[in-house]
Amino acid sequence: MTAPRLDVLGFGNAIVDVLARTEDDFLLAHDMRKGGMTLIDEARAEAVYAAMGPGVEVSGGSAANTIAGVAALGGRAGFVGKVKDDGLGSIFGHDIRAAGVAFATPSAADGPATARCLILVSPDGERTMNTYLGAAQNLSPADVDADTVAGAAITYLEGYLWDPPAAKEAFLKAAGIAHAAGRTVSLTLSDAFCVDRYRAEFLKLMREGTVDLLFANEGELKSLYETADFDAALAQLRQDVRRAVVTRSEKGALSVSGSDLVEVPAHPVERVVDTTGAGDLFAAGYLHGHAQGFAPADSLKLGALCAAEIISHMGARSERSLKDLAQENGLRV
Amino acid sequence: MTAPRLDVLGFGNAIVDVLARTEDDFLLAHDMRKGGMTLIDEARAEAVYAAMGPGVEVSGGSAANTIAGVAALGGRAGFVGKVKDDGLGSIFGHDIRAAGVAFATPSAADGPATARCLILVSPDGERTMNTYLGAAQNLSPADVDADTVAGAAITYLEGYLWDPPAAKEAFLKAAGIAHAAGRTVSLTLSDAFCVDRYRAEFLKLMREGTVDLLFANEGELKSLYETADFDAALAQLRQDVRRAVVTRSEKGALSVSGSDLVEVPAHPVERVVDTTGAGDLFAAGYLHGHAQGFAPADSLKLGALCAAEIISHMGARSERSLKDLAQENGLRV
Repeated sequence: MTAPRLDVLGFGNAIVDVLARTEDDFLLAHDMRKGGMTLIDEARAEAVYAAMGPGVEVSGGSAANTIAGVAALGGRAGFVGKVKDDGLGSIFGHDIRAAGVAFATPSAADGPATARCLILVSPDGERTMNTYLGAAQNLSPADVDADTVAGAAITYLEGYLWDPPAAKEAFLKAAGIAHAAGRTVSLTLSDAFCVDRYRAEFLKLMREGTVDLLFANEGELKSLYETADFDAALAQLRQDVRRAVVTRSEKGALSVSGSDLVEVPAHPVERVVDTTGAGDLFAAGYLHGHAQGFAPADSLKLGALCAAEIISHMGARSERSLKDLAQENGLRV
Repeated sequence: MTAPRLDVLGFGNAIVDVLARTEDDFLLAHDMRKGGMTLIDEARAEAVYAAMGPGVEVSGGSAANTIAGVAALGGRAGFVGKVKDDGLGSIFGHDIRAAGVAFATPSAADGPATARCLILVSPDGERTMNTYLGAAQNLSPADVDADTVAGAAITYLEGYLWDPPAAKEAFLKAAGIAHAAGRTVSLTLSDAFCVDRYRAEFLKLMREGTVDLLFANEGELKSLYETADFDAALAQLRQDVRRAVVTRSEKGALSVSGSDLVEVPAHPVERVVDTTGAGDLFAAGYLHGHAQGFAPADSLKLGALCAAEIISHMGARSERSLKDLAQENGLRV
C-alpha cells in the first residue's frame, strides 16, 4: 500500500444551494416537510423559486460541503460529481476548486441543467430542502478514476447518491477500488427519508463491510432501525458497522466501534442562523481528524467545532478560517 | 400634486455580487485599491474570478440594495435597472421582486451579460469591489416610465449611473419628470473615485437644484471638495444642496440643511463581518424615515440601525427583518 495522495475523496451530488429565509407558514402552504430533503422536478423547482423570497446562491451538495471543509482544515481533498456546462455549473466548479479541492469530473455539454437545492430557512435556523438533481443524476461509473480513488486514504460517499441509479453504480465502483487498495470507505446516511427509501441496501452495505465508517444523525439512525429508542438503535449499530459517528444536534455527538463509545458535547453557538450543512461540516472535522490520526474524541471535537461555525451564518461553506478556529480551540490540524 | 403611489423609486446599475473572503496580500498582488470600486472589462472579470476564493452570489447594486431595504422596512418601493436575459439576470429579477420591489425594466435579449461585482472581503470586513457593468450600461431614457417616476415621492439615483452614458441620460430624464411632478430627487455620491471622475457634474446637479437630498460618506465628501478638512467640506456642502446626509462609519452620521445640523452615533455592532452595503442600507433607513415624515434624527437612527444589520453578515441584502429590528429599537416604521 503506497502512501495516500489525498486524505479524503468525496463522491456526491454537485449542487448549488439557493437559500432564502421563510416563515413556517410558507412550508405549510407549499406542502413541505420541515427539516427534510425532498426531490423535485424542474417544473416544481421553477414554481418554488418563483414563490420563495430573495436568495443567496452558494455552492452546496452534502459531500461537496464536507470536502470543502476538509480542504479548509488543510487536508488534501478531492471531489467527484456532475454539473452541466452552464451558469450554476461554472459557479460550482469555481467554488470547489477555489476551496483547494481537486475536481476533475467533466461537465455535461447537454441534458438537464446543473442541480440546485432550494433551501427555506425558518426563523429557528432549521432548513427545508427541495432538490432538483438535474445534471447530478448523470454521474456514472465512467466518472470514477481508479488511480484517484486508490490514492485516497478515505473515500467518502453520500447516501443521496442512491437516488440517481447511475450514481449508485459509480458509488459501488469507487468503494470496490478503495477496498482493493486497502483504503477506508465512509458513508453518510444523508437524510432520514433517504434512509427510508434505501434502508435494506444501506444495512447491506454496512453488514457486508462495504462501508467501514458511517455517519448518521439521530433521526437517520432511528429511521435506519425503525425505532424511536435511541439506545436500542445504537446497540444495533455497534453490531452492524466497524465504526460509526452519530450527531445529536445540541446534545452533542458520539462515536462507537465495537464496545468503545466516545462522546463530546455540542460546541456552544451564540445564535443559530441556519443549520444547513451542520452534519456535512461535522463530517469534515471528523474525517480530517481521522485522516490525521487524531484520537476519536479529538476528531469528534473538531467535527463539533466545524458544525458550530457553519450554523452561525447562512450557507454550508465556512465563512471563517476553519484552520484558525481549530487552533484557537487547541486542536492542531 | 396627487398622493404618491411609491415612497421611493431607485435608479441604478442592476448587479449580482459575488463575494469572497480574501487576505490583503491578494489585493496587492492583483493591484486592487482596498475599499474602492473599480470598473473592469470582461477579460479582467474572468481573470479576477478565476483567482478569487469560493464565492457567495447575492443580488446587489447600490441603489438596488437601498430599494430592497426600503421594501424590507415596509415602504412602497420600485427599481429601474438593466439586466440581460441570462442566469444572473434571472437571479437579480427574482430577488428584487421577492423583496417586494416593483421592477418592470425589460431585460436585454442580447448584448453583454448581466453585470457582476466581484467583491473581495478583507479580514477587517472592508470590501474591495471590481465591477463588470455588462448589460447595466445599456439602461437608457426609454427605460424611464414617466407615470412611475411622477408617482414616486422620492426618486433616488446612484452616482455610479454617471459611468454609462445612456444611463446618465436616463438619470436626467427621471430627475426632470420628478421635479415637474413636485417630487424629491435624491442622489448618492456612490464612491470617492466616482466623485473624482464626475466632480464638476455632481456639483452642478447640486447647485442647480437638480438634487434635493444628497447622500455621501466622509471620503466622498472630501473628494467632492478636494480637501482633507471635514469641517471645511461640510461648510461648503451646506451652501451647495438643500439637504445632505453624511455617514462617517464608526463615527456615526449627520444631516445638514442650511444652518440645521443633526448628528447620531453609529449603532453598535458585535463583529463587523462585511461592510458591503453599509452606505446603501443607511440610505434605505433614512429615505424610508424621510418618506414617513420622521424627524431627521429618527431617520438617521433608522439608517444607522439598517447599516449595522448589513455589516454583521456577508452580503448587502438584509438577513433579519429590518421592520422587526426597527421596532425592537423603538422606531415605528
